[in-house]
Amino acid sequence: MVMTTWVSEGRRPRVVIIGGGFGGLYAARALKRDKVDVLVLDRTNHHLFQPLLYQVATATLAPTDITSPIRWLLRRQRNATVLMTEVLRIDPARRVVIADAGEFPYDFLIVAAGARHAYFGHPEWEANAPGLKSIDDAIAIRQHILTAFERAELAHDPVERDAWLSFVVIGGGPTGVEMAGMIPTIAKDALARDFRRISTEKARVTLLEGGPRVLPSYPEDLSERARLDLTALGVDVRTDTLVTSVAKGEVRAGELVLHTRTVIWAAGNAASPLGASLGAELDRVGRVRVEQDLSLAAHPEIFVIGDMVTISSRGKPVPGVAPAAMQMGPHAVKNIRRTIQDRPRLPFVYRNKGDLATIGRHRAIADFGFLQVTGGAAWWFWLFLHIMYLAGFRNRLSVLLEWGYSYFTYDRGARLITAGRPAAVQASEP
Amino acid sequence: MVMTTWVSEGRRPRVVIIGGGFGGLYAARALKRDKVDVLVLDRTNHHLFQPLLYQVATATLAPTDITSPIRWLLRRQRNATVLMTEVLRIDPARRVVIADAGEFPYDFLIVAAGARHAYFGHPEWEANAPGLKSIDDAIAIRQHILTAFERAELAHDPVERDAWLSFVVIGGGPTGVEMAGMIPTIAKDALARDFRRISTEKARVTLLEGGPRVLPSYPEDLSERARLDLTALGVDVRTDTLVTSVAKGEVRAGELVLHTRTVIWAAGNAASPLGASLGAELDRVGRVRVEQDLSLAAHPEIFVIGDMVTISSRGKPVPGVAPAAMQMGPHAVKNIRRTIQDRPRLPFVYRNKGDLATIGRHRAIADFGFLQVTGGAAWWFWLFLHIMYLAGFRNRLSVLLEWGYSYFTYDRGARLITAGRPAAVQASEP
Repeated sequence: MVMTTWVSEGRRPRVVIIGGGFGGLYAARALKRDKVDVLVLDRTNHHLFQPLLYQVATATLAPTDITSPIRWLLRRQRNATVLMTEVLRIDPARRVVIADAGEFPYDFLIVAAGARHAYFGHPEWEANAPGLKSIDDAIAIRQHILTAFERAELAHDPVERDAWLSFVVIGGGPTGVEMAGMIPTIAKDALARDFRRISTEKARVTLLEGGPRVLPSYPEDLSERARLDLTALGVDVRTDTLVTSVAKGEVRAGELVLHTRTVIWAAGNAASPLGASLGAELDRVGRVRVEQDLSLAAHPEIFVIGDMVTISSRGKPVPGVAPAAMQMGPHAVKNIRRTIQDRPRLPFVYRNKGDLATIGRHRAIADFGFLQVTGGAAWWFWLFLHIMYLAGFRNRLSVLLEWGYSYFTYDRGARLITAGRPAAVQASEP
Repeated sequence: MVMTTWVSEGRRPRVVIIGGGFGGLYAARALKRDKVDVLVLDRTNHHLFQPLLYQVATATLAPTDITSPIRWLLRRQRNATVLMTEVLRIDPARRVVIADAGEFPYDFLIVAAGARHAYFGHPEWEANAPGLKSIDDAIAIRQHILTAFERAELAHDPVERDAWLSFVVIGGGPTGVEMAGMIPTIAKDALARDFRRISTEKARVTLLEGGPRVLPSYPEDLSERARLDLTALGVDVRTDTLVTSVAKGEVRAGELVLHTRTVIWAAGNAASPLGASLGAELDRVGRVRVEQDLSLAAHPEIFVIGDMVTISSRGKPVPGVAPAAMQMGPHAVKNIRRTIQDRPRLPFVYRNKGDLATIGRHRAIADFGFLQVTGGAAWWFWLFLHIMYLAGFRNRLSVLLEWGYSYFTYDRGARLITAGRPAAVQASEP
């Protein structure tokens, strides 16, 4: 067993964690009382509370509300060091992580590098249809949406004005549904009084989903409820509609042609390319096939967790959601601990505590397996749960303040366009 | 008189305001009850509360805390329209404003386009010494400062580490003094526990001022008090020190050579280049010489206000500060009103309500002319005053929350690096 070599060397095992998202952060925290040296590497300085990212993209929350410095979150954990550096690849043979700031040797490695959005083999679509994964993505989309209303107010040509007031969301998963539900809510509640030449209520939102229903991972009746809620908000929901082209000012799905200046991509994911450098088997979207203990068959010292892995639990694939990552992190740590103690590892079992999605104001759907809740009750539960899980007391208070403000005034507090105009809009000018 | 032509045409006078800063916003608000059509043009979508900009640059406040959409601030003023467009030039002969979104005719024009920082004929310094005027500037400087600590934590070479922990602020005016005072405060209070390999307390801040004392516009004893306060915080204050070169990794002032990766420019201002298109006389830094009524001699229908003008009041030049702009806006409006009513215009008289500057925590200096206050009392007064003037109830609450958090925890709530690394840092890598 490899582990005994450390003990003989008389030094503490080095656990390197790549990524400070839910998987990496919860893994680091689980190692708090272990006699190991923890090193967390992330290309950014912050942990991102991804479930609320769409609220930054829709100007409800500020970027600082849903981010906290990783080193601040781990400030009291003396065995943990955090470094901001981009990991380039992993060399499992030499047991080193190669990053732009140098090489970092490990005894155990936890790879939690997440996923990016993917464009089904059409990377050229990205320029006109930004996705929503990082805080920078959210700031860029916020800028796009706010700028669209500004440009509509400026437009003389009614056709151009309509194109600026037309929003297309591609992908009917939770992110797509939440984005599509939020845009008409903002247009009606927050912006209506502020414009003089346009009626912001006339903003049209189209949600395009390739499959037969939105929220395909939810039970059918909840999908139907989400569709009804979206339609009530004025969203044009089109299922069985595969996008065939995304170009400047235009989205096509077969015969359907939508003239729009704002397209948001919420359709496809691809795992972090770091998975490829592990030499393990990957699935179609680049996710690593891990063993039941979350490690690699050829490298039991390497664990891969979060939405960059493909694994089944109780016969069902584990979804790429935050709760799964939060459970995998501590599970990988438990198996590292058992390995050091020379005890057998345990298989990962996913406990699905329920799925939740919000659709605008006072509307949400929740699936707890044994119970399904929709409407106002689900919406309040959603609020409560997200405040509970938000990392750090400060952010929790700040988000409560923002939400309280939005709830009572119908306004949005983070309507900031930072850089004049988004690059894509600038490029589309003559 | 030109005004009579409007009355005969039977339409409401058009007042175009360029800029949504303090001057432009207060002018627009002053026109609330007038029978005129107000058009506010700004290249951004927001009014910026500039006196707190350095708090965004030092990660204390979030960008959304000190910005509000201009159209939101004027939402209840039905005679006002706000358009986001960049003004390119003014054609006084044809009475039109030429912007990238088209031409806008006016009967009265209020130009309140502000100032940018200037580099004393060394525009090449800007790449290595960003200035602090816009919210984008503040986000970039925040990124610079936070990234410097991250890079110091990564550095193996002690010389390189020291360069990352060395901060140079050029210019000893209020912005320079407030920036220089805040950096050691953050390094000691907010960051110390979060790093493992560096002592953030060892961060060195050097403040370079070309003249004989900091805060040259304040009375001498307050300058001396500011210098003592800065020195107590560990800032190396060097007066009579003219910067001779700013290059990558190095600032020179004659014999003095400082090795640093973070330089902040707070030394020079230049008025908006729009002044030049007015055909009026400009001073050395491009400020427009206006008449005592704030209008142009050759064009009484054009008013220029804020820090892009040079004017004297009671024999003393009016400083380019927020309170002056807040007074000039309504004064220009008063003179427009009097012109429409065929009454004589009034000369502008600046009422200096006092000067204030903060130096770190619990330290500030205030000069009310008849009274000078320093220390804790001045600091609390500074807090109170800035909260009072903050535009919009929402921001006021949010800033109070952030300050309360910082005050009691010694932490900073907005430590977000948005784009991996600032461009300048990336460029400096091999």
